[in-house]
Amino acid sequence: MTPPASVLVIGCGLIGTSIALALREHGVDVHLDDTSRSNLELAVSRGAGSAEPVAAPDLVVVAVPPSGVVDTVSHVLSTWPDAVVTDVASVKTHLAARIAELPGSYRYVGSHPMAGSERAGPMAASARLFEGRPWAVTPMAGAGERSVRLIEAVAELVGAVPITMDAESHDRAVALVSHVPHVLSVLAAARLRDAPRSHLSLAGPGLRDVTRIAGSDTALWSDILRSNAGEVRALLEQVRADLEGVIASLGLDEPAVDGILESGRAGTRLIPGKHGERPIEFATVFVPIADHPGELSRLMAHTGESGVNIEDLRIDHELGRPVGLVEIAVLADRADVLVEALTARGWPAYR
Amino acid sequence: MTPPASVLVIGCGLIGTSIALALREHGVDVHLDDTSRSNLELAVSRGAGSAEPVAAPDLVVVAVPPSGVVDTVSHVLSTWPDAVVTDVASVKTHLAARIAELPGSYRYVGSHPMAGSERAGPMAASARLFEGRPWAVTPMAGAGERSVRLIEAVAELVGAVPITMDAESHDRAVALVSHVPHVLSVLAAARLRDAPRSHLSLAGPGLRDVTRIAGSDTALWSDILRSNAGEVRALLEQVRADLEGVIASLGLDEPAVDGILESGRAGTRLIPGKHGERPIEFATVFVPIADHPGELSRLMAHTGESGVNIEDLRIDHELGRPVGLVEIAVLADRADVLVEALTARGWPAYR
Repeated sequence: MTPPASVLVIGCGLIGTSIALALREHGVDVHLDDTSRSNLELAVSRGAGSAEPVAAPDLVVVAVPPSGVVDTVSHVLSTWPDAVVTDVASVKTHLAARIAELPGSYRYVGSHPMAGSERAGPMAASARLFEGRPWAVTPMAGAGERSVRLIEAVAELVGAVPITMDAESHDRAVALVSHVPHVLSVLAAARLRDAPRSHLSLAGPGLRDVTRIAGSDTALWSDILRSNAGEVRALLEQVRADLEGVIASLGLDEPAVDGILESGRAGTRLIPGKHGERPIEFATVFVPIADHPGELSRLMAHTGESGVNIEDLRIDHELGRPVGLVEIAVLADRADVLVEALTARGWPAYR
Repeated sequence: MTPPASVLVIGCGLIGTSIALALREHGVDVHLDDTSRSNLELAVSRGAGSAEPVAAPDLVVVAVPPSGVVDTVSHVLSTWPDAVVTDVASVKTHLAARIAELPGSYRYVGSHPMAGSERAGPMAASARLFEGRPWAVTPMAGAGERSVRLIEAVAELVGAVPITMDAESHDRAVALVSHVPHVLSVLAAARLRDAPRSHLSLAGPGLRDVTRIAGSDTALWSDILRSNAGEVRALLEQVRADLEGVIASLGLDEPAVDGILESGRAGTRLIPGKHGERPIEFATVFVPIADHPGELSRLMAHTGESGVNIEDLRIDHELGRPVGLVEIAVLADRADVLVEALTARGWPAYR
């Protein structure tokens, strides 16, 4: 599929401007529009495209907030009778149902680029935002084949991995891999509120991992959860049944809790690992280091020299000491090689 | 408090051998014992101490599995009438109640070093295992002041941060910061089991964070949850009430879900940050890099040259592309400095 020659991006926030920047890098003629004059000017100043009107774009990307998507898509479908249209909202079914009733809706194909940043707006945008990220493509039943291929081509062009599924599957999938885990993270974090400060001093990296996403913007998440309420509620009812089981088995002092622990462990092994392949066995090599930038840089240099590839890397925060613990995940059969190489260079590495 | 001159460590697993190795580095005379001859020999071969009997140790560290703690402490209290005794079990109240009835129990002070590794046994041990980690010290009501100070001194000697609290507070604290977050991680991961593979392809770093600890050893966690069943159940009942609230508010399509989201966000801000201080505002700088070891090393070198300290660092896995996304957490007011420094050196950094 040839990429589009000209694209109109409506909405110059983080996602819209990032798409525009990435398309420009590949020579696409990009036009921009935004109801906010200042957003539009900032996006233009970043080189994301032109604010001049466009006669006949091949593609229009509607990157406005979810509440404005249907009206904007409607306007686009009637204004440019040959353009393919996509949006970038994170929940698709309720939008698709309303868009399906619009004339020309066969030219609409939903998108959900799974990328973001802590910051919003055109100044936070980056042509690299979608690099290696999943990009859900959600055609409706009547969508034109050419339109679907065009959106997939655009996703690939900006560096993302297109994953095509219907809107209902998408909403069920994001409830499972994003919305419900978010609620569970929030439930764990909410319990901390009434705790004595001394209890929290025992917190370790596990708590920080589980609760990290609970620190996200609450207004955004309130919108997301409510717009996917049906799917989220159905899964949370299953979670509640599992939770009842755990509570009951703890009351009976019996090993019934083992079943859910096994299910959880099995679940983690289904999460795609690197390169989209089956989960691989990793091992963690631990290296305590002094807490200043030069140390980490030296450690990385020595790790590089070892020839062992780093699959993941974390720095564990510490309590009241000028030292950090670096956790380097490597393929299980390479861990001893790395420990030996680092030990030989004077690091107190262990696994 | 002067550290102990001679210590007997009973149980040469990961924790016992690591304590022994750390004490040896500080010139303490360490003796070892284990019912497993091979564990004992391995620990001795690693230089963790001597297998010769000891006449009068100042301290005995009971590092046997939880089920053997009470019998071993009883034996130690009657065999060495002047020794202080500690254990390293991760749940304290049920042990303390039984140990309180033993003669000489004023010489017992519970410990829970909050450190571990994916591997078990003496070969996985490290003198650095406790570096910067919290070490809960849990004296009973009748514990001798000298005994408590000795255990705190040992925790500091091996690099840990002693945190002294009674056994009930400890068990409530670990239920809050470790056991309940573990259950919630398991509940999120368990839902993945029945999902179509294509749904999991939309998984992002948030899911991996929330579910990481659900991949832990299930037999170990079954033991932990059951030995702290009362505290865990009480908290899980509060979680269930919060979950009911979320389910109800999603059914009503009303913004009542905002309250729990705010509670969760507030909770994350109470987790101690670096140096045990109040939470600090961090910002994340994103840098896509090629997926081979030299790249990360170059990036770290350039980050080091920028003079901006790295508070945390993650490498996000990607899908089917030879690229990784490095997330560097720095103090919020230093993020722009780092982006500029990295951009000047040719990195596509953004925040």
